Amino acid sequence: MIIGLDVGGTNIKGVLINGRKVIAKIKVATKSRTDKKILVNQILSCIDGLKNKASKIEKIGIGIAGPIDFKKQTVLNPPNLIALRGLKLGKLVQDKFGIKTIIEHDVNCFVLVEAILGAGKNYKSVFGITLGTGVGGGMVIDKKIYRGAHGSSGEVGHMTIEKNGRQCKCGNKGCLEPYICDTGIKQTAKQIFKKQIDSLRIFDDLAKKGDKRAIKLYETVGKYLGIGLANIVDTINPEVIVIGGGIMRAGKFILNPAKKEMKKNILSQSAKKTKILKSKLGKFAGAIGATLLTL
Amino acid sequence: MIIGLDVGGTNIKGVLINGRKVIAKIKVATKSRTDKKILVNQILSCIDGLKNKASKIEKIGIGIAGPIDFKKQTVLNPPNLIALRGLKLGKLVQDKFGIKTIIEHDVNCFVLVEAILGAGKNYKSVFGITLGTGVGGGMVIDKKIYRGAHGSSGEVGHMTIEKNGRQCKCGNKGCLEPYICDTGIKQTAKQIFKKQIDSLRIFDDLAKKGDKRAIKLYETVGKYLGIGLANIVDTINPEVIVIGGGIMRAGKFILNPAKKEMKKNILSQSAKKTKILKSKLGKFAGAIGATLLTL
Repeated sequence: MIIGLDVGGTNIKGVLINGRKVIAKIKVATKSRTDKKILVNQILSCIDGLKNKASKIEKIGIGIAGPIDFKKQTVLNPPNLIALRGLKLGKLVQDKFGIKTIIEHDVNCFVLVEAILGAGKNYKSVFGITLGTGVGGGMVIDKKIYRGAHGSSGEVGHMTIEKNGRQCKCGNKGCLEPYICDTGIKQTAKQIFKKQIDSLRIFDDLAKKGDKRAIKLYETVGKYLGIGLANIVDTINPEVIVIGGGIMRAGKFILNPAKKEMKKNILSQSAKKTKILKSKLGKFAGAIGATLLTL
Repeated sequence: MIIGLDVGGTNIKGVLINGRKVIAKIKVATKSRTDKKILVNQILSCIDGLKNKASKIEKIGIGIAGPIDFKKQTVLNPPNLIALRGLKLGKLVQDKFGIKTIIEHDVNCFVLVEAILGAGKNYKSVFGITLGTGVGGGMVIDKKIYRGAHGSSGEVGHMTIEKNGRQCKCGNKGCLEPYICDTGIKQTAKQIFKKQIDSLRIFDDLAKKGDKRAIKLYETVGKYLGIGLANIVDTINPEVIVIGGGIMRAGKFILNPAKKEMKKNILSQSAKKTKILKSKLGKFAGAIGATLLTL
Protein backbone atom coordinates (compact mmCIF):
# COMPACT_ATOMS: atom_id res chain seq x y z
CA MET A 1 0.00 0.00 0.00
CA ILE A 2 1.36 3.40 -1.05
CA ILE A 3 0.06 6.92 -0.40
CA GLY A 4 0.35 9.52 -3.17
CA LEU A 5 -0.30 13.22 -2.61
CA ASP A 6 -0.58 16.05 -5.14
CA VAL A 7 -0.17 19.40 -3.40
CA GLY A 8 -1.32 22.30 -5.56
CA GLY A 9 -2.10 25.95 -4.96
CA THR A 10 -5.83 25.27 -5.29
CA ASN A 11 -6.36 21.68 -4.12
CA ILE A 12 -4.62 18.86 -2.36
CA LYS A 13 -5.46 15.49 -3.86
CA GLY A 14 -4.49 12.16 -2.40
CA VAL A 15 -4.79 8.48 -3.21
CA LEU A 16 -4.18 5.21 -1.40
CA ILE A 17 -2.94 2.55 -3.81
CA ASN A 18 -2.77 -1.22 -3.43
CA GLY A 19 -0.62 -2.59 -6.22
CA ARG A 20 -2.09 -0.55 -9.06
CA LYS A 21 -5.59 -0.28 -7.65
CA VAL A 22 -6.86 2.95 -6.13
CA ILE A 23 -8.36 2.06 -2.71
CA ALA A 24 -9.23 5.57 -1.52
CA LYS A 25 -9.20 9.14 -2.81
CA ILE A 26 -9.37 12.54 -1.14
CA LYS A 27 -9.59 16.06 -2.51
CA VAL A 28 -9.57 19.16 -0.32
CA ALA A 29 -9.13 22.87 -0.98
CA THR A 30 -5.65 24.11 -0.08
CA LYS A 31 -6.09 26.07 3.17
CA SER A 32 -3.11 28.35 2.74
CA ARG A 33 -0.44 28.98 0.12
CA THR A 34 1.63 31.19 2.36
CA ASP A 35 1.33 29.95 5.96
CA LYS A 36 3.75 27.13 6.55
CA LYS A 37 2.15 25.79 9.73
CA ILE A 38 -1.38 25.69 8.29
CA LEU A 39 -0.30 24.06 5.02
CA VAL A 40 2.06 21.50 6.58
CA ASN A 41 -0.60 20.51 9.11
CA GLN A 42 -3.13 20.08 6.31
CA ILE A 43 -0.71 17.88 4.35
CA LEU A 44 -0.02 15.76 7.44
CA SER A 45 -3.72 15.47 8.13
CA CYS A 46 -4.43 14.32 4.53
CA ILE A 47 -1.77 11.63 4.89
CA ASP A 48 -3.13 10.60 8.28
CA GLY A 49 -6.61 10.22 6.82
CA LEU A 50 -5.39 7.91 4.04
CA LYS A 51 -3.04 6.07 6.40
CA ASN A 52 -5.93 5.12 8.68
CA LYS A 53 -7.52 3.22 5.79
CA ALA A 54 -4.60 0.78 5.50
CA SER A 55 -2.95 -1.66 7.86
CA LYS A 56 0.58 -0.90 6.64
CA ILE A 57 1.92 1.87 4.38
CA GLU A 58 5.09 1.01 2.50
CA LYS A 59 5.88 4.43 1.04
CA ILE A 60 4.57 7.99 0.62
CA GLY A 61 5.07 10.05 -2.56
CA ILE A 62 4.30 13.76 -2.72
CA GLY A 63 4.05 15.89 -5.85
CA ILE A 64 4.42 19.64 -5.32
CA ALA A 65 3.32 22.42 -7.65
CA GLY A 66 6.69 24.04 -8.15
CA PRO A 67 10.40 23.44 -8.46
CA ILE A 68 12.17 21.16 -6.03
CA ASP A 69 15.74 19.98 -5.60
CA PHE A 70 15.16 16.27 -6.02
CA LYS A 71 18.61 15.16 -4.85
CA LYS A 72 18.34 17.23 -1.68
CA GLN A 73 14.61 16.43 -1.42
CA THR A 74 14.00 20.10 -0.72
CA VAL A 75 11.26 22.39 -2.01
CA LEU A 76 12.80 25.39 -3.79
CA ASN A 77 10.67 28.48 -4.39
CA PRO A 78 7.19 27.53 -5.67
CA PRO A 79 5.34 30.73 -6.67
CA ASN A 80 1.94 29.26 -5.74
CA LEU A 81 3.05 27.49 -2.56
CA ILE A 82 5.55 29.81 -0.93
CA ALA A 83 4.60 28.31 2.44
CA LEU A 84 6.79 25.34 1.50
CA ARG A 85 9.83 27.34 0.39
CA GLY A 86 13.10 25.72 1.43
CA LEU A 87 11.33 22.93 3.30
CA LYS A 88 12.63 19.34 3.43
CA LEU A 89 9.04 18.19 3.24
CA GLY A 90 9.89 14.54 2.56
CA LYS A 91 12.03 14.26 5.67
CA LEU A 92 9.42 16.07 7.75
CA VAL A 93 6.71 13.60 6.72
CA GLN A 94 9.07 10.64 7.09
CA ASP A 95 10.03 11.69 10.63
CA LYS A 96 6.38 12.20 11.58
CA PHE A 97 5.04 8.85 10.35
CA GLY A 98 8.16 6.68 10.16
CA ILE A 99 7.37 5.88 6.53
CA LYS A 100 9.79 6.40 3.64
CA THR A 101 8.70 9.58 1.80
CA ILE A 102 9.77 11.04 -1.55
CA ILE A 103 8.92 14.47 -2.95
CA GLU A 104 8.93 15.54 -6.62
CA HIS A 105 7.73 18.33 -8.90
CA ASP A 106 4.06 17.66 -9.67
CA VAL A 107 4.58 17.86 -13.44
CA ASN A 108 7.11 15.03 -13.22
CA CYS A 109 4.54 12.94 -11.31
CA PHE A 110 2.03 13.63 -14.10
CA VAL A 111 4.47 12.65 -16.87
CA LEU A 112 5.63 9.56 -14.95
CA VAL A 113 2.14 8.16 -14.49
CA GLU A 114 1.10 8.94 -18.07
CA ALA A 115 4.29 7.21 -19.27
CA ILE A 116 3.76 4.12 -17.12
CA LEU A 117 -0.04 3.72 -16.98
CA GLY A 118 -1.53 6.36 -19.26
CA ALA A 119 -1.42 7.64 -22.83
CA GLY A 120 2.34 7.05 -23.09
CA LYS A 121 2.48 3.54 -21.67
CA ASN A 122 3.51 1.89 -24.95
CA TYR A 123 6.35 4.32 -25.65
CA LYS A 124 9.98 4.53 -24.59
CA SER A 125 10.40 8.32 -24.47
CA VAL A 126 7.49 10.43 -23.31
CA PHE A 127 7.48 14.20 -23.07
CA GLY A 128 4.58 15.54 -21.00
CA ILE A 129 3.06 19.00 -20.99
CA THR A 130 0.39 20.44 -18.69
CA LEU A 131 -1.63 23.42 -19.83
CA GLY A 132 -3.34 25.34 -17.05
CA THR A 133 -2.60 28.45 -15.00
CA GLY A 134 0.96 27.90 -16.15
CA VAL A 135 2.61 25.60 -18.67
CA GLY A 136 4.67 22.76 -17.23
CA GLY A 137 6.68 20.01 -18.82
CA GLY A 138 8.83 16.99 -18.13
CA MET A 139 10.31 13.94 -19.76
CA VAL A 140 10.32 10.24 -18.94
CA ILE A 141 12.80 7.96 -20.75
CA ASP A 142 12.50 4.19 -20.30
CA LYS A 143 9.91 4.80 -17.53
CA LYS A 144 12.33 6.97 -15.52
CA ILE A 145 12.06 10.71 -14.96
CA TYR A 146 14.75 12.64 -16.86
CA ARG A 147 15.53 15.69 -14.71
CA GLY A 148 18.50 17.18 -16.55
CA ALA A 149 21.80 18.19 -15.02
CA HIS A 150 20.39 20.71 -12.54
CA GLY A 151 16.93 19.18 -12.09
CA SER A 152 15.33 21.79 -14.30
CA SER A 153 14.53 20.22 -17.65
CA GLY A 154 11.03 20.48 -19.09
CA GLU A 155 10.46 24.21 -18.56
CA VAL A 156 9.11 24.46 -22.09
CA GLY A 157 6.57 27.12 -21.14
CA HIS A 158 9.48 29.52 -21.04
CA MET A 159 11.18 28.79 -24.34
CA THR A 160 11.21 31.88 -26.54
CA ILE A 161 9.08 31.41 -29.64
CA GLU A 162 8.38 35.03 -30.53
CA LYS A 163 11.27 37.32 -29.65
CA ASN A 164 9.89 40.60 -28.24
CA GLY A 165 6.40 39.08 -28.21
CA ARG A 166 3.82 38.86 -25.44
CA GLN A 167 4.87 39.62 -21.86
CA CYS A 168 5.37 36.50 -19.71
CA LYS A 169 4.92 36.25 -15.93
CA CYS A 170 8.60 35.24 -15.71
CA GLY A 171 9.65 38.73 -16.76
CA ASN A 172 10.75 37.92 -20.32
CA LYS A 173 8.85 38.49 -23.53
CA GLY A 174 7.76 36.00 -26.16
CA CYS A 175 7.81 32.82 -24.08
CA LEU A 176 5.39 30.07 -25.14
CA GLU A 177 3.38 30.23 -21.89
CA PRO A 178 1.59 33.60 -22.34
CA TYR A 179 0.05 32.32 -25.58
CA ILE A 180 -1.26 28.98 -24.36
CA CYS A 181 -1.87 29.23 -20.60
CA ASP A 182 -5.24 30.09 -19.05
CA THR A 183 -4.66 33.86 -18.73
CA GLY A 184 -2.95 33.96 -22.12
CA ILE A 185 -5.92 32.36 -23.86
CA LYS A 186 -8.24 34.79 -22.07
CA GLN A 187 -6.12 37.63 -23.43
CA THR A 188 -6.43 36.28 -26.98
CA ALA A 189 -10.17 35.68 -26.44
CA LYS A 190 -10.57 39.30 -25.35
CA GLN A 191 -9.02 40.41 -28.64
CA ILE A 192 -11.34 38.18 -30.66
CA PHE A 193 -14.59 38.66 -28.68
CA LYS A 194 -13.95 42.29 -27.73
CA LYS A 195 -14.96 41.74 -24.13
CA GLN A 196 -13.60 40.70 -20.74
CA ILE A 197 -13.38 36.91 -20.32
CA ASP A 198 -13.83 35.29 -16.89
CA SER A 199 -13.72 31.60 -17.76
CA LEU A 200 -12.68 29.60 -20.81
CA ARG A 201 -15.34 26.93 -20.28
CA ILE A 202 -17.88 28.80 -22.39
CA PHE A 203 -15.64 28.51 -25.47
CA ASP A 204 -15.55 24.71 -25.28
CA ASP A 205 -19.32 24.65 -25.71
CA LEU A 206 -19.26 27.38 -28.36
CA ALA A 207 -16.60 25.54 -30.36
CA LYS A 208 -18.59 22.29 -30.20
CA LYS A 209 -21.61 24.19 -31.52
CA GLY A 210 -19.51 25.41 -34.46
CA ASP A 211 -19.05 29.03 -33.32
CA LYS A 212 -16.46 30.43 -35.73
CA ARG A 213 -14.86 32.84 -33.28
CA ALA A 214 -14.40 30.14 -30.62
CA ILE A 215 -12.91 27.84 -33.24
CA LYS A 216 -10.60 30.64 -34.37
CA LEU A 217 -9.56 31.25 -30.76
CA TYR A 218 -8.48 27.63 -30.30
CA GLU A 219 -6.83 27.60 -33.72
CA THR A 220 -4.71 30.56 -32.67
CA VAL A 221 -3.81 28.84 -29.39
CA GLY A 222 -3.17 25.55 -31.22
CA LYS A 223 -0.80 27.17 -33.69
CA TYR A 224 1.34 28.54 -30.86
CA LEU A 225 1.25 25.19 -29.10
CA GLY A 226 2.30 23.55 -32.39
CA ILE A 227 5.35 25.81 -32.64
CA GLY A 228 6.31 24.81 -29.11
CA LEU A 229 5.80 21.11 -29.87
CA ALA A 230 7.99 21.40 -32.99
CA ASN A 231 10.73 23.08 -30.94
CA ILE A 232 10.62 20.19 -28.47
CA VAL A 233 10.73 17.61 -31.28
CA ASP A 234 13.55 19.39 -33.14
CA THR A 235 15.55 19.52 -29.91
CA ILE A 236 14.96 16.14 -28.29
CA ASN A 237 12.70 14.09 -30.61
CA PRO A 238 10.63 12.15 -28.06
CA GLU A 239 8.53 9.25 -29.29
CA VAL A 240 5.35 10.82 -27.98
CA ILE A 241 4.19 14.05 -26.36
CA VAL A 242 1.31 13.69 -23.89
CA ILE A 243 -0.66 16.86 -23.17
CA GLY A 244 -2.86 17.36 -20.12
CA GLY A 245 -4.22 20.09 -17.88
CA GLY A 246 -7.49 22.00 -17.78
CA ILE A 247 -7.00 23.69 -21.16
CA MET A 248 -7.21 20.25 -22.80
CA ARG A 249 -10.98 20.30 -22.25
CA ALA A 250 -10.92 21.98 -25.67
CA GLY A 251 -9.42 18.75 -27.06
CA LYS A 252 -9.31 18.51 -30.84
CA PHE A 253 -10.10 22.22 -31.27
CA ILE A 254 -6.59 22.92 -29.97
CA LEU A 255 -4.85 19.65 -30.85
CA ASN A 256 -5.71 19.52 -34.56
CA PRO A 257 -4.28 22.94 -35.46
CA ALA A 258 -1.36 22.25 -33.08
CA LYS A 259 -0.46 19.02 -34.89
CA LYS A 260 -0.72 20.70 -38.28
CA GLU A 261 1.53 23.58 -37.23
CA MET A 262 3.95 21.18 -35.55
CA LYS A 263 4.41 19.10 -38.71
CA LYS A 264 4.97 22.24 -40.75
CA ASN A 265 7.71 23.34 -38.35
CA ILE A 266 9.62 20.11 -37.64
CA LEU A 267 12.73 19.87 -39.81
CA SER A 268 13.22 16.14 -40.12
CA GLN A 269 10.72 14.02 -42.05
CA SER A 270 11.19 11.09 -39.67
CA ALA A 271 10.58 13.19 -36.53
CA LYS A 272 7.19 14.25 -37.89
CA LYS A 273 6.13 10.77 -36.74
CA THR A 274 6.27 11.97 -33.11
CA LYS A 275 2.80 11.28 -31.70
CA ILE A 276 0.75 13.93 -29.91
CA LEU A 277 -1.72 12.45 -27.43
CA LYS A 278 -4.18 13.78 -24.88
CA SER A 279 -3.47 12.61 -21.33
CA LYS A 280 -5.62 9.75 -20.04
CA LEU A 281 -5.53 9.62 -16.26
CA GLY A 282 -7.59 12.65 -15.28
CA LYS A 283 -7.45 14.79 -12.19
CA PHE A 284 -5.78 12.30 -9.87
CA ALA A 285 -2.94 11.61 -12.32
CA GLY A 286 -0.45 13.60 -10.24
CA ALA A 287 -1.36 11.84 -6.98
CA ILE A 288 -1.18 8.40 -8.60
CA GLY A 289 2.10 9.42 -10.23
CA ALA A 290 3.47 10.32 -6.79
CA THR A 291 2.97 6.69 -5.71
CA LEU A 292 5.32 5.62 -8.53
CA LEU A 293 8.27 7.74 -7.36
CA THR A 294 11.59 6.11 -6.52
CA LEU A 295 14.75 7.67 -5.17
CA MET B 1 43.82 0.75 -35.17
CA ILE B 2 40.64 2.51 -36.29
CA ILE B 3 39.91 4.66 -39.35
CA GLY B 4 37.63 7.68 -38.97
CA LEU B 5 36.26 9.65 -41.91
CA ASP B 6 34.37 12.95 -41.96
CA VAL B 7 32.59 13.37 -45.28
CA GLY B 8 31.46 16.95 -45.86
CA GLY B 9 30.22 18.93 -48.84
CA THR B 10 33.51 20.84 -49.03
CA ASN B 11 36.17 18.45 -47.69
CA ILE B 12 36.70 14.85 -46.74
CA LYS B 13 38.89 14.48 -43.66
CA GLY B 14 40.26 11.22 -42.35
CA VAL B 15 42.33 9.95 -39.45
CA LEU B 16 44.03 6.72 -38.51
CA ILE B 17 43.94 6.18 -34.75
CA ASN B 18 45.94 3.86 -32.53
CA GLY B 19 44.32 3.75 -29.12
CA ARG B 20 43.72 7.48 -28.72
CA LYS B 21 46.75 8.61 -30.74
CA VAL B 22 46.34 10.03 -34.24
CA ILE B 23 48.84 8.17 -36.50
CA ALA B 24 47.87 9.72 -39.83
CA LYS B 25 45.60 12.45 -41.20
CA ILE B 26 44.28 13.26 -44.64
CA LYS B 27 42.21 16.15 -45.98
CA VAL B 28 41.01 16.38 -49.57
CA ALA B 29 38.47 18.54 -51.39
CA THR B 30 35.19 16.72 -52.03
CA LYS B 31 35.23 15.90 -55.76
CA SER B 32 31.47 15.78 -56.23
CA ARG B 33 28.39 16.37 -54.09
CA THR B 34 26.01 14.95 -56.70
CA ASP B 35 27.75 12.12 -58.57
CA LYS B 36 27.47 8.92 -56.59
CA LYS B 37 30.22 7.01 -58.43
CA ILE B 38 32.79 9.82 -58.14
CA LEU B 39 32.07 10.47 -54.46
CA VAL B 40 31.91 6.83 -53.37
CA ASN B 41 35.18 6.09 -55.20
CA GLN B 42 36.80 9.06 -53.47
CA ILE B 43 35.61 7.84 -50.07
CA LEU B 44 36.92 4.32 -50.77
CA SER B 45 40.23 5.74 -51.95
CA CYS B 46 40.61 7.85 -48.77
CA ILE B 47 40.01 4.75 -46.65
CA ASP B 48 42.43 2.73 -48.77
CA GLY B 49 45.12 5.39 -48.28
CA LEU B 50 44.75 5.28 -44.47
CA LYS B 51 44.43 1.48 -44.45
CA ASN B 52 47.78 1.08 -46.18
CA LYS B 53 49.45 2.81 -43.22
CA ALA B 54 48.37 0.12 -40.74
CA SER B 55 48.89 -3.60 -40.47
CA LYS B 56 45.36 -4.35 -39.27
CA ILE B 57 42.26 -2.13 -39.11
CA GLU B 58 39.74 -3.08 -36.46
CA LYS B 59 36.89 -0.76 -37.43
CA ILE B 60 35.92 2.11 -39.73
CA GLY B 61 33.67 5.00 -38.65
CA ILE B 62 32.23 7.49 -41.12
CA GLY B 63 30.56 10.80 -40.27
CA ILE B 64 28.35 12.26 -42.99
CA ALA B 65 27.16 15.86 -43.35
CA GLY B 66 23.47 15.19 -43.26
CA PRO B 67 20.73 13.06 -41.78
CA ILE B 68 21.11 9.30 -41.65
CA ASP B 69 18.95 6.46 -40.37
CA PHE B 70 21.36 5.06 -37.81
CA LYS B 71 19.44 1.84 -37.14
CA LYS B 72 19.26 1.04 -40.85
CA GLN B 73 22.77 2.49 -41.37
CA THR B 74 21.40 4.31 -44.41
CA VAL B 75 22.06 7.85 -45.59
CA LEU B 76 18.77 9.78 -45.87
CA ASN B 77 18.66 12.98 -47.92
CA PRO B 78 21.69 15.18 -47.19
CA PRO B 79 21.20 18.55 -48.97
CA ASN B 80 24.96 19.02 -49.47
CA LEU B 81 25.77 15.41 -50.38
CA ILE B 82 22.87 14.23 -52.48
CA ALA B 83 25.21 11.75 -54.20
CA LEU B 84 24.86 9.59 -51.08
CA ARG B 85 21.04 9.72 -50.84
CA GLY B 86 19.54 6.39 -49.81
CA LEU B 87 22.92 4.67 -49.77
CA LYS B 88 23.85 1.97 -47.25
CA LEU B 89 27.34 3.43 -47.18
CA GLY B 90 28.50 1.47 -44.14
CA LYS B 91 27.61 -1.88 -45.70
CA LEU B 92 29.20 -0.86 -49.01
CA VAL B 93 32.51 0.00 -47.27
CA GLN B 94 32.31 -3.11 -45.09
CA ASP B 95 31.77 -5.37 -48.13
CA LYS B 96 34.65 -3.73 -50.00
CA PHE B 97 37.27 -3.98 -47.23
CA GLY B 98 35.92 -6.73 -44.99
CA ILE B 99 36.16 -4.35 -42.00
CA LYS B 100 33.26 -3.51 -39.67
CA THR B 101 32.00 -0.05 -40.65
CA ILE B 102 29.57 2.33 -38.91
CA ILE B 103 28.07 5.52 -40.32
CA GLU B 104 26.65 8.47 -38.34
CA HIS B 105 25.56 12.08 -38.77
CA ASP B 106 28.73 14.23 -38.65
CA VAL B 107 27.33 16.48 -35.91
CA ASN B 108 26.89 13.46 -33.64
CA CYS B 109 30.55 12.51 -34.28
CA PHE B 110 31.55 16.05 -33.28
CA VAL B 111 29.50 15.99 -30.07
CA LEU B 112 30.68 12.48 -29.19
CA VAL B 113 34.37 13.32 -29.43
CA GLU B 114 33.95 16.64 -27.59
CA ALA B 115 32.05 14.74 -24.86
CA ILE B 116 34.67 12.00 -24.54
CA LEU B 117 37.98 13.77 -25.26
CA GLY B 118 37.20 17.46 -25.68
CA ALA B 119 35.60 20.39 -23.89
CA GLY B 120 32.82 18.18 -22.45
CA LYS B 121 34.96 15.35 -21.16
CA ASN B 122 34.29 16.02 -17.48
CA TYR B 123 30.51 16.21 -17.88
CA LYS B 124 27.72 13.65 -17.95
CA SER B 125 25.34 15.36 -20.38
CA VAL B 126 26.80 17.34 -23.27
CA PHE B 127 24.79 19.20 -25.86
CA GLY B 128 26.89 20.14 -28.91
CA ILE B 129 26.22 22.81 -31.52
CA THR B 130 28.10 23.54 -34.74
CA LEU B 131 27.84 26.98 -36.30
CA GLY B 132 28.81 27.13 -39.96
CA THR B 133 26.97 27.07 -43.28
CA GLY B 134 24.14 25.56 -41.27
CA VAL B 135 23.50 25.07 -37.56
CA GLY B 136 23.73 21.50 -36.31
CA GLY B 137 23.24 19.96 -32.91
CA GLY B 138 23.33 16.74 -30.96
CA MET B 139 23.43 15.36 -27.46
CA VAL B 140 25.63 12.87 -25.65
CA ILE B 141 24.46 11.47 -22.30
CA ASP B 142 26.87 9.33 -20.27
CA LYS B 143 29.26 9.29 -23.26
CA LYS B 144 26.58 7.81 -25.56
CA ILE B 145 24.89 9.58 -28.45
CA TYR B 146 21.23 10.37 -27.69
CA ARG B 147 19.43 10.17 -31.04
CA GLY B 148 15.81 10.54 -29.99
CA ALA B 149 12.95 8.28 -31.01
CA HIS B 150 13.29 8.80 -34.76
CA GLY B 151 17.01 9.58 -34.90
CA SER B 152 16.36 13.27 -35.35
CA SER B 153 17.09 15.03 -32.08
CA GLY B 154 19.43 18.01 -32.02
CA GLU B 155 17.98 19.98 -34.93
CA VAL B 156 18.12 23.13 -32.85
CA GLY B 157 18.93 25.32 -35.85
CA HIS B 158 15.30 24.96 -36.78
CA MET B 159 13.57 25.77 -33.52
CA THR B 160 11.35 28.82 -33.92
CA ILE B 161 12.61 31.73 -31.84
CA GLU B 162 10.99 34.63 -33.70
CA LYS B 163 7.61 33.69 -35.17
CA ASN B 164 7.26 35.29 -38.62
CA GLY B 165 10.91 36.36 -38.46
CA ARG B 166 13.74 35.87 -40.92
CA GLN B 167 13.29 33.38 -43.77
CA CYS B 168 15.11 30.06 -43.22
CA LYS B 169 16.46 27.73 -45.91
CA CYS B 170 14.11 25.03 -44.56
CA GLY B 171 11.11 27.01 -45.82
CA ASN B 172 9.86 28.25 -42.45
CA LYS B 173 10.34 31.67 -40.92
CA GLY B 174 11.95 32.65 -37.65
CA CYS B 175 14.15 29.58 -37.10
CA LEU B 176 17.34 30.13 -35.10
CA GLU B 177 19.62 29.22 -38.03
CA PRO B 178 19.12 32.27 -40.29
CA TYR B 179 20.30 34.52 -37.46
CA ILE B 180 23.47 32.68 -36.50
CA CYS B 181 24.70 30.71 -39.54
CA ASP B 182 27.28 32.01 -42.01
CA THR B 183 24.84 33.48 -44.54
CA GLY B 184 22.62 34.81 -41.75
CA ILE B 185 25.50 36.69 -40.12
CA LYS B 186 26.45 38.10 -43.53
CA GLN B 187 22.86 39.34 -43.88
CA THR B 188 23.05 41.08 -40.50
CA ALA B 189 26.51 42.46 -41.36
CA LYS B 190 25.12 43.90 -44.60
CA GLN B 191 22.49 45.77 -42.57
CA ILE B 192 25.12 47.15 -40.18
CA PHE B 193 27.93 47.91 -42.67
CA LYS B 194 25.64 48.89 -45.56
CA LYS B 195 27.59 46.81 -48.08
CA GLN B 196 27.83 43.32 -49.57
CA ILE B 197 29.81 40.89 -47.37
CA ASP B 198 31.83 38.06 -48.92
CA SER B 199 33.56 36.60 -45.88
CA LEU B 200 33.13 36.95 -42.13
CA ARG B 201 36.87 36.61 -41.39
CA ILE B 202 37.41 40.36 -41.64
CA PHE B 203 35.05 40.97 -38.71
CA ASP B 204 37.09 38.77 -36.37
CA ASP B 205 40.07 41.09 -36.91
CA LEU B 206 37.91 44.21 -36.72
CA ALA B 207 36.31 43.08 -33.45
CA LYS B 208 39.74 42.33 -31.93
CA LYS B 209 40.84 45.85 -32.88
CA GLY B 210 37.78 47.24 -31.06
CA ASP B 211 35.71 48.20 -34.12
CA LYS B 212 32.31 49.09 -32.69
CA ARG B 213 30.27 47.94 -35.66
CA ALA B 214 31.98 44.53 -35.74
CA ILE B 215 31.44 44.16 -32.00
CA LYS B 216 27.79 45.13 -32.46
CA LEU B 217 27.46 42.55 -35.25
CA TYR B 218 28.65 39.74 -33.00
CA GLU B 219 26.57 41.03 -30.10
CA THR B 220 23.48 40.77 -32.29
CA VAL B 221 24.45 37.23 -33.34
CA GLY B 222 25.30 36.32 -29.76
CA LYS B 223 21.95 37.49 -28.45
CA TYR B 224 20.12 35.22 -30.88
CA LEU B 225 22.44 32.35 -30.03
CA GLY B 226 21.72 33.03 -26.34
CA ILE B 227 17.97 32.73 -26.90
CA GLY B 228 18.57 29.39 -28.61
CA LEU B 229 20.82 28.20 -25.78
CA ALA B 230 18.17 29.17 -23.20
CA ASN B 231 15.52 27.24 -25.14
CA ILE B 232 17.76 24.16 -25.09
CA VAL B 233 18.44 24.55 -21.36
CA ASP B 234 14.77 25.15 -20.50
CA THR B 235 13.81 22.04 -22.47
CA ILE B 236 16.52 19.52 -21.60
CA ASN B 237 18.91 21.15 -19.13
CA PRO B 238 22.24 19.62 -20.20
CA GLU B 239 25.23 20.01 -17.91
CA VAL B 240 27.25 21.73 -20.62
CA ILE B 241 26.78 23.04 -24.15
CA VAL B 242 29.87 22.82 -26.38
CA ILE B 243 29.88 25.12 -29.40
CA GLY B 244 32.08 24.59 -32.46
CA GLY B 245 32.19 25.36 -36.17
CA GLY B 246 33.80 28.10 -38.24
CA ILE B 247 31.71 30.92 -36.75
CA MET B 248 33.37 30.25 -33.39
CA ARG B 249 36.51 31.99 -34.68
CA ALA B 250 34.77 35.08 -33.27
CA GLY B 251 35.00 33.41 -29.82
CA LYS B 252 34.19 35.68 -26.90
CA PHE B 253 32.69 38.37 -29.14
CA ILE B 254 29.78 35.98 -29.75
CA LEU B 255 29.97 33.86 -26.59
CA ASN B 256 29.88 36.66 -23.99
CA PRO B 257 26.64 38.29 -25.23
CA ALA B 258 25.23 34.79 -25.85
CA LYS B 259 25.84 33.74 -22.23
CA LYS B 260 24.36 36.97 -20.91
CA GLU B 261 21.21 36.60 -23.01
CA MET B 262 20.96 32.91 -22.13
CA LYS B 263 21.02 33.61 -18.38
CA LYS B 264 18.36 36.28 -18.80
CA ASN B 265 16.10 33.81 -20.61
CA ILE B 266 16.49 30.59 -18.60
CA LEU B 267 13.62 30.18 -16.15
CA SER B 268 15.19 28.12 -13.40
CA GLN B 269 17.93 29.60 -11.20
CA SER B 270 19.68 26.25 -10.94
CA ALA B 271 19.75 25.67 -14.71
CA LYS B 272 21.59 28.97 -15.18
CA LYS B 273 24.60 26.94 -14.03
CA THR B 274 24.69 25.16 -17.40
CA LYS B 275 28.18 25.77 -18.80
CA ILE B 276 28.80 27.16 -22.28
CA LEU B 277 32.18 26.10 -23.70
CA LYS B 278 34.01 26.50 -26.98
CA SER B 279 34.90 23.19 -28.65
CA LYS B 280 38.49 22.01 -28.25
CA LEU B 281 39.34 19.44 -30.87
CA GLY B 282 39.56 21.52 -34.03
CA LYS B 283 38.99 20.59 -37.64
CA PHE B 284 39.52 16.85 -37.31
CA ALA B 285 37.05 16.52 -34.42
CA GLY B 286 34.42 14.87 -36.65
CA ALA B 287 36.87 12.34 -38.09
CA ILE B 288 38.24 11.45 -34.65
CA GLY B 289 34.66 11.26 -33.36
CA ALA B 290 33.84 8.76 -36.12
CA THR B 291 36.48 6.41 -34.67
CA LEU B 292 34.54 6.39 -31.39
CA LEU B 293 31.26 5.15 -32.91
CA THR B 294 29.70 1.93 -31.70
CA LEU B 295 26.59 0.15 -32.94
